[in-house]
Amino acid sequence: VNPGGGRRRRPPYRRPAASARKIGLSPGTVVYTGTEPPGEVGVDLIVYGEDGFEHRRGAGIEAALAGIGDGRVRWIDVTGLHDTPMLERIGAALGLHPLTLEDVASVAQRPKVERFDTYHYVVMRMITLVPSADVVPVLREEQLSIVLVGDVVVTFKERPGDVLDTLRTRIGQDRGRARRLGADYLAYAIVDLVVDHYFAVLEAISDALEAFEVRAFEAPDHATVDGVQAVKRELLHLRRAIWPTRELLASLARDEEEGAISSPVRTYLRDAHDHAVAVLETVEMLRETASAVHETYLAALSLRTNDVMRLLTIIATVFIPLTFVVGVYGMNFEHMPELGWRWGYAAVWAVMLVAVALMLLMFRRRRWI
Amino acid sequence: VNPGGGRRRRPPYRRPAASARKIGLSPGTVVYTGTEPPGEVGVDLIVYGEDGFEHRRGAGIEAALAGIGDGRVRWIDVTGLHDTPMLERIGAALGLHPLTLEDVASVAQRPKVERFDTYHYVVMRMITLVPSADVVPVLREEQLSIVLVGDVVVTFKERPGDVLDTLRTRIGQDRGRARRLGADYLAYAIVDLVVDHYFAVLEAISDALEAFEVRAFEAPDHATVDGVQAVKRELLHLRRAIWPTRELLASLARDEEEGAISSPVRTYLRDAHDHAVAVLETVEMLRETASAVHETYLAALSLRTNDVMRLLTIIATVFIPLTFVVGVYGMNFEHMPELGWRWGYAAVWAVMLVAVALMLLMFRRRRWI
Amino acid sequence: VNPGGGRRRRPPYRRPAASARKIGLSPGTVVYTGTEPPGEVGVDLIVYGEDGFEHRRGAGIEAALAGIGDGRVRWIDVTGLHDTPMLERIGAALGLHPLTLEDVASVAQRPKVERFDTYHYVVMRMITLVPSADVVPVLREEQLSIVLVGDVVVTFKERPGDVLDTLRTRIGQDRGRARRLGADYLAYAIVDLVVDHYFAVLEAISDALEAFEVRAFEAPDHATVDGVQAVKRELLHLRRAIWPTRELLASLARDEEEGAISSPVRTYLRDAHDHAVAVLETVEMLRETASAVHETYLAALSLRTNDVMRLLTIIATVFIPLTFVVGVYGMNFEHMPELGWRWGYAAVWAVMLVAVALMLLMFRRRRWI
Amino acid sequence: VNPGGGRRRRPPYRRPAASARKIGLSPGTVVYTGTEPPGEVGVDLIVYGEDGFEHRRGAGIEAALAGIGDGRVRWIDVTGLHDTPMLERIGAALGLHPLTLEDVASVAQRPKVERFDTYHYVVMRMITLVPSADVVPVLREEQLSIVLVGDVVVTFKERPGDVLDTLRTRIGQDRGRARRLGADYLAYAIVDLVVDHYFAVLEAISDALEAFEVRAFEAPDHATVDGVQAVKRELLHLRRAIWPTRELLASLARDEEEGAISSPVRTYLRDAHDHAVAVLETVEMLRETASAVHETYLAALSLRTNDVMRLLTIIATVFIPLTFVVGVYGMNFEHMPELGWRWGYAAVWAVMLVAVALMLLMFRRRRWI
Amino acid sequence: VNPGGGRRRRPPYRRPAASARKIGLSPGTVVYTGTEPPGEVGVDLIVYGEDGFEHRRGAGIEAALAGIGDGRVRWIDVTGLHDTPMLERIGAALGLHPLTLEDVASVAQRPKVERFDTYHYVVMRMITLVPSADVVPVLREEQLSIVLVGDVVVTFKERPGDVLDTLRTRIGQDRGRARRLGADYLAYAIVDLVVDHYFAVLEAISDALEAFEVRAFEAPDHATVDGVQAVKRELLHLRRAIWPTRELLASLARDEEEGAISSPVRTYLRDAHDHAVAVLETVEMLRETASAVHETYLAALSLRTNDVMRLLTIIATVFIPLTFVVGVYGMNFEHMPELGWRWGYAAVWAVMLVAVALMLLMFRRRRWI
Repeated sequence: VNPGGGRRRRPPYRRPAASARKIGLSPGTVVYTGTEPPGEVGVDLIVYGEDGFEHRRGAGIEAALAGIGDGRVRWIDVTGLHDTPMLERIGAALGLHPLTLEDVASVAQRPKVERFDTYHYVVMRMITLVPSADVVPVLREEQLSIVLVGDVVVTFKERPGDVLDTLRTRIGQDRGRARRLGADYLAYAIVDLVVDHYFAVLEAISDALEAFEVRAFEAPDHATVDGVQAVKRELLHLRRAIWPTRELLASLARDEEEGAISSPVRTYLRDAHDHAVAVLETVEMLRETASAVHETYLAALSLRTNDVMRLLTIIATVFIPLTFVVGVYGMNFEHMPELGWRWGYAAVWAVMLVAVALMLLMFRRRRWI
Repeated sequence: VNPGGGRRRRPPYRRPAASARKIGLSPGTVVYTGTEPPGEVGVDLIVYGEDGFEHRRGAGIEAALAGIGDGRVRWIDVTGLHDTPMLERIGAALGLHPLTLEDVASVAQRPKVERFDTYHYVVMRMITLVPSADVVPVLREEQLSIVLVGDVVVTFKERPGDVLDTLRTRIGQDRGRARRLGADYLAYAIVDLVVDHYFAVLEAISDALEAFEVRAFEAPDHATVDGVQAVKRELLHLRRAIWPTRELLASLARDEEEGAISSPVRTYLRDAHDHAVAVLETVEMLRETASAVHETYLAALSLRTNDVMRLLTIIATVFIPLTFVVGVYGMNFEHMPELGWRWGYAAVWAVMLVAVALMLLMFRRRRWI
Repeated sequence: VNPGGGRRRRPPYRRPAASARKIGLSPGTVVYTGTEPPGEVGVDLIVYGEDGFEHRRGAGIEAALAGIGDGRVRWIDVTGLHDTPMLERIGAALGLHPLTLEDVASVAQRPKVERFDTYHYVVMRMITLVPSADVVPVLREEQLSIVLVGDVVVTFKERPGDVLDTLRTRIGQDRGRARRLGADYLAYAIVDLVVDHYFAVLEAISDALEAFEVRAFEAPDHATVDGVQAVKRELLHLRRAIWPTRELLASLARDEEEGAISSPVRTYLRDAHDHAVAVLETVEMLRETASAVHETYLAALSLRTNDVMRLLTIIATVFIPLTFVVGVYGMNFEHMPELGWRWGYAAVWAVMLVAVALMLLMFRRRRWI
Repeated sequence: VNPGGGRRRRPPYRRPAASARKIGLSPGTVVYTGTEPPGEVGVDLIVYGEDGFEHRRGAGIEAALAGIGDGRVRWIDVTGLHDTPMLERIGAALGLHPLTLEDVASVAQRPKVERFDTYHYVVMRMITLVPSADVVPVLREEQLSIVLVGDVVVTFKERPGDVLDTLRTRIGQDRGRARRLGADYLAYAIVDLVVDHYFAVLEAISDALEAFEVRAFEAPDHATVDGVQAVKRELLHLRRAIWPTRELLASLARDEEEGAISSPVRTYLRDAHDHAVAVLETVEMLRETASAVHETYLAALSLRTNDVMRLLTIIATVFIPLTFVVGVYGMNFEHMPELGWRWGYAAVWAVMLVAVALMLLMFRRRRWI
Repeated sequence: VNPGGGRRRRPPYRRPAASARKIGLSPGTVVYTGTEPPGEVGVDLIVYGEDGFEHRRGAGIEAALAGIGDGRVRWIDVTGLHDTPMLERIGAALGLHPLTLEDVASVAQRPKVERFDTYHYVVMRMITLVPSADVVPVLREEQLSIVLVGDVVVTFKERPGDVLDTLRTRIGQDRGRARRLGADYLAYAIVDLVVDHYFAVLEAISDALEAFEVRAFEAPDHATVDGVQAVKRELLHLRRAIWPTRELLASLARDEEEGAISSPVRTYLRDAHDHAVAVLETVEMLRETASAVHETYLAALSLRTNDVMRLLTIIATVFIPLTFVVGVYGMNFEHMPELGWRWGYAAVWAVMLVAVALMLLMFRRRRWI
């Protein structure tokens, strides 16, 4: 993990270079471009209405697609994107465009919302904290695709585990508005939770920066520079994920033409948009803070070098001339009258002490000591 | 307060990470997210009209809500946001939306104005100076929520104490226009005072920067860097608070559709908007000044290091060769003819003095001394 | 003037923090917020038409207001803003809004134009050079308020002395268009002269920067850094004054709705707007130049430090080993065979000379000497 | 390749300064402005429809132009731009404007799309990786002109070899939609492949930056600075090529007025536009990363200098005073009582050891060792 | 030329501070504000139509104005702007506004186009390379005013010599479209040539930057910093000249309302606009390159300082302790047992050699040698 002699830190996460792998393929080809190892594909199903709630883990795709249109909201949660035929099965059942399926499987999409005649397609970046002893928070980024078709919400993600468990619980316990409002509210609630988790990530980054700022003064070393730069890289990635998310939410909140998104849900979307704006502002503030920490580090280092130089100069300025003086009387000339003087040795000491005193006075006046 | 060996300064104030604490709660849930300890909630009431004025401290919520609609302006001033049921009582009495109450209690809101059918909701950041012996001004930031419903203005804040006492006195003494104009003018006057206090904060920051600029030349040390960075952090926070305030005021001043805000008050709002623009410009100017002080610090430090190096080099260049020379004649070879010369010792001195003179001349020509 | 041991420079001018002084006063209160000591208030009057011209110095306010509406253009020039009753007298006579009078007396206004039903109110920042032996130009900034009501132009300023004398002469001598066109042309001519004086200020600043650039190479010292930073501060202030002036002129030049500003004068205003744009561009260019001078200073200082270090290193590298060698033969061991050799001393010299030659060769190859 | 003593790197590619060479020529003059040596001009032809496919390498221009309008899509691929008469022959056959032909031959065009009455003209920058052992990727940039006239797509490039072979294969094997959709889809597919190749280039640059970041910590040397700056230069060029490409694609995707581009192809163009946006974002992120690597380099170098200075200071501070002490007792005064003391020598050693211990303690407390 | 001890470079050209000289003059006053010495004013005339061409050098103003309206295009080329009456004569003959004449003579105008009822007035900055042995290209900037009235194009410039000779030749030889299209094409062709010459200037600047980049690594010295800063200054000036030129061309190309500019010429103007955009992009790229060269310089200098320090530290660390050791045995204590040992001298040597070996090993492990 640390190729640089234990010091350097790898970029904590990189978007897989999906497009590079797919160069030359025909547009619309559904190919998983992520780095997850192929595993079993899981399909969970949550079905609920005002009067009931059902959570079927591992329901399988056919069970999940059966019964659509019975007036209840259903959330089909797909984990794992290797199974291209299954994606195409879902696409066929819900009438999705080939390009949508391609985007679902190409997991390096920019966040966006696309409106089709019968459905909305939303791509987001889900970012979570990985527990770690490191000062720099370790982040995990994943593409979350959300399709809203009539009463159905389909979510696609690469790995098991997400940030949506509190939502599942809320729906199950019929708390809040979740059960009373329709599939559009469900889609909103998913989006909102993803945005809210950005705050937790930013808080961790803020703490890391504060720790680095202390270190920059205390003990400026490689790890500080490296850590600050790693944080800056993370913020760069976050901004890249959040900036289009903000546009996406603004676009959804404005979305008045179609009946897909009801007016109360639009109000909530405006709220989520406000959150995204606040997240972005925090990202920018943390970016400036990170730059300031780097500046502080450099300033502290300069000051430290200056201190070191000053000590060296004081020592050298005091002792080098004295060493010259004693060297003079260490010469072996036959005719050196001072050597025979009675108080010669004492006089040399006196001269040297006066010189040292004068020099210390000079340093004091220059405020060096 | 100073974890870094007495030198580092904590960020003077941080927005509580409200959203992180609330992740997973249903939107519209009213939860106080600030850091104030729970204390008694106070409700003050000011009622006035052209012909009278009444200020009831600790009136209690029911008394404050009684009598609304009697043609007089009433200002209900709520201090402390822990009492969720009371907030919901006010919301019910005045017809506030759940999201408004949630925002009142979530004290990390971005400044904004929201128009509802029957009321306006304004969020501001109230920033005040805390008296302190520190060079870097110590700031206190607090969320002030203002609700304007008909003849009633309700303000919500977390802590006792605010910047509005001069306004209370002005109304009580019937100076200025305050008593003649309606509740919209009252709301404006509150907003205006909050904006005006930003000037006082900026003046304190400006003085701090001037002090640091002197120090940067006189005695560049850790405290200077640290102080300048602390000021930059404060300016970053201020900008974040003031930038949306400007938009808010522009939006209110343009607000022509509804009767809630009368035309003369809109004129005053335009004035307040001009102030907010001036505040923002000052913030930007101070940010550039802070950067310039940091630059000056670095330049002064570089010059100081250069001075130190120059002294070292002069001393070393003069004395190291001389020490070599006297070292030569300190050797104990049996056959060193110079040692026996009558004027050997004097000749060495002469050579050394000439060398020193030449070197000093060279340094003078290079303008080092 | 130089608190920093003769080196630091105070910001050459600061906007008085007017608003901080007025916090809590009712909007519309007329209070002078500047720093001028209270002195006599002077009112000059210039009255002219196609056929005549009269300049009455110290006319007094009543004389100045008498006779308005006789078809001749009159320019009432008020110096000194302490006399609140007089300001209110003028306001009453010309029908000015209380907010206008407040702005006239609050001398930290941002440049702006405000249109009222019967008059235009223009605020500008008049910036002039104070003669000084300093390299950094010393600037004086003052608020100039211009009110255009029918045939009357009123100007308000804090101090005697302005940049408008050439205009007075031009009107008096009936040169140019001044006498043939109306009060709107007069107002334009005043604005134009204020803008033109910015050029003179910028030229002085440009000369200062050029001087500092030479110094940055010749003798990088504190005064250079300090001077460049002072110039940057001045440019920051200038930009703050000129930027809204540009908007103001654009707004006036577009002002087609009302009859107050005639079409030919609008043409001239477009010209003045072009000038303001050019001034702003020059300000930006000088700001970049100032940054470049600072960069040059730092680079020159780094190079100088490098030179110093190189000299030190050469001296030390040559002489420290030699001193060691002669130290060896200064040891007093009883058994040191070399000391007894016939050519020992000569051999040591030979070895040392060869070593020096080799080192000099190495330095030459590294291009250090 | 390395004029700077093996260290410096030439800018990896430069746009030929086409316009400088053509100054004074009448607009519309067709002159090849690139740097390719004149060689044979090659014209390939691909003709296909739903039922057949023909690829004629070296078909020649007349064969390529014959048969246009038979309902099949034909792709005329011209390599080499020296042959002005041939370009004019194509222009005449397809009805191209002289300015289009001029742009085809002037190979330093900015990417753009131009709509003419009967055809679309698209200019792109085709950027490919040249295999190299260098850490900094070696790029090759070339102008690709695409003309879409009815059923014909003509591509013009300077050199043999391009990024379009996968497309040729795809059409030949009738995979994807290529054969079923018309000439507009062919043009889109060409544009899309060029954009997709930018990803491969960016991935190589990203790898290079990662390598340089490791080096910046391990062994900061000239090659690191040079490499990072070379990468920055490449990113600058890439941005210059891609920025207008994004506009071009947005413009094509919006192109609703004419029948030249069908609605399904516009959907694909929107997709290509999304890719271009993602490419641009990556370029910006890599630019910031490159700056961060440079910053890291400088910080690592400062730290290293600080380390070096600290060692020097410790050594000098410990030994220079000791050398002075032993120098004192190396003096040859006749009257130096200490020299005759029984334990004088031992006392000197004791004093020196204590002094060293104290100094080491001081260094330890300053955390220098 | 080099006031700074042979090192500093004066800004290669400065816009004359025209406005400062004219402060207080009535707007519309025609005064030459440039720095050219007054010389003879020259008026050249080129008259041509489809069937003929005449070039009369030194035609004089009356001859040039005679015969206007005969259906042929005439280009009146005025050199030298001191002759105010002549300018007014031209203005009267062609119906020019006084402000236009003022702008013609005030040679520090920003590029712009102004439409009047009967004519177009275009101001451009003509920038040419002055042949020089200097690395930094020496530029000459001049104002070129172009007036298009009906069939007449008048150009005004300060000095003999311009960039338009190729155009004169082209018209004379009836090459290209010049003779067939009207006066608007002539005006376009002039503008186009001026823009094209910016490319030549930028190419020279690009070459200079490349030379400085090599130097920054090879031999970082004052001249490099100075040269790079001079280039940056030139680019700043160029941007200032070209930025409004781009707007000007966009405005002309859009100019659909009036018949003055025909549709084919507008097509050519769009082309010229594309060129101006490309020029601006190149300017921005060169500005970033110049900054990068400066950064490289600083990094190279830091590395060099680090190298110097390292050598010094190695030498000092090796020899200072050794010198101490030999100093010890140079003391003259009577009781120093080691001095009498048989192998004392050899032992000291052995100890010293081992110490040196250990230190070299340590340096090797730190990669210092």
